[in-house]
Amino acid sequence: MIKYPSGQAYKPSTKRTSKKDKVEISKSASNRGMDLENDINLSNEYYRDHHIALINKRPTPINIVKVDYSKGARITDAYFEKQSTTDYNGVYKGRYIDFEAKNTKSKTSFPLSNIEKHQIEHLKMVLEQGGIAFFIIEFQLLGEVYLLDASYVIHFYEHGERKSIPYQTFIESGIKIKQGYSPRLYYIDAIEEKYFSK
Amino acid sequence: MIKYPSGQAYKPSTKRTSKKDKVEISKSASNRGMDLENDINLSNEYYRDHHIALINKRPTPINIVKVDYSKGARITDAYFEKQSTTDYNGVYKGRYIDFEAKNTKSKTSFPLSNIEKHQIEHLKMVLEQGGIAFFIIEFQLLGEVYLLDASYVIHFYEHGERKSIPYQTFIESGIKIKQGYSPRLYYIDAIEEKYFSK
Repeated sequence: MIKYPSGQAYKPSTKRTSKKDKVEISKSASNRGMDLENDINLSNEYYRDHHIALINKRPTPINIVKVDYSKGARITDAYFEKQSTTDYNGVYKGRYIDFEAKNTKSKTSFPLSNIEKHQIEHLKMVLEQGGIAFFIIEFQLLGEVYLLDASYVIHFYEHGERKSIPYQTFIESGIKIKQGYSPRLYYIDAIEEKYFSK
Repeated sequence: MIKYPSGQAYKPSTKRTSKKDKVEISKSASNRGMDLENDINLSNEYYRDHHIALINKRPTPINIVKVDYSKGARITDAYFEKQSTTDYNGVYKGRYIDFEAKNTKSKTSFPLSNIEKHQIEHLKMVLEQGGIAFFIIEFQLLGEVYLLDASYVIHFYEHGERKSIPYQTFIESGIKIKQGYSPRLYYIDAIEEKYFSK
């Protein structure tokens, strides 16, 4: 069996059956596809192990109501909080990297309904501070994944007539992310092309 | 009453009485002082609200054992995990910033016993990727707070004869962080002096 450095067994993305253990998280997360998240996490491991980039997923914020210290600080009551930032950040070539990953079953546009106002505010501040901010969007039924700079998402969020970004915008202004075996998503290549190639 | 932008009332650090609500976290965190953490969080709010820098505290990672969906995804069993990275990261002038905050009651050295091996590994990778990585160390009984580049901490962690960093190293190689009212800790000034003034 092929194993990733973490010891996690590799599961081809065509066999998407073992979702049982992810139910907890997927219920708390909006509509992001868990396979996309898993692919990004595995890609991050690859990039870290190959000393290419250091990107981490932020832990899901949890509001703790009760802790039982008689059981060694066991949390007995808590609930999920909405992420006020984005899911991923880190460093590549000294630059600050910050992004959110989402997927959609639409073939014609990416709906903005599941993006929170404070995430948009967060991304605006990242751009203001000179950081690199973008979305990784998977069009599930097309089998395509794109990097789209946060400025486009902010624009459509604040000025778009419809609450969605047309597929055509991804074709024209996004970078298509190459998919493979390891890393699953060559998204650093897309960052390189978009932000470092000039 | 003077209030911070978050609406949180300002509490002078000389009156350190209202720690009750922080017990949960302080039991989970190593020996970091909660006032230091609070001061950094308030300073981060100040820097964010004044568009100077965008630094966030990473949520404490929690391992979820059981979720009760009949109560709207209420977590009924979980436990704290050790942070495998550092507590803070973000962006300043486009550069990636990553740091850990600790305090000590010692007047002569900072003990490394409460720094985890994987935190050292994380910081080495941040430096390798060209990020800015450091520690904010408070000498509680001296009332002094220092920024010390992660390279010193890594050096003493891996090559130091004693598992501590002498106070003298902070004097010679650290940057003393000015303390005030708002922000409580002018640590961006220290970053500017250390990493941007040449």
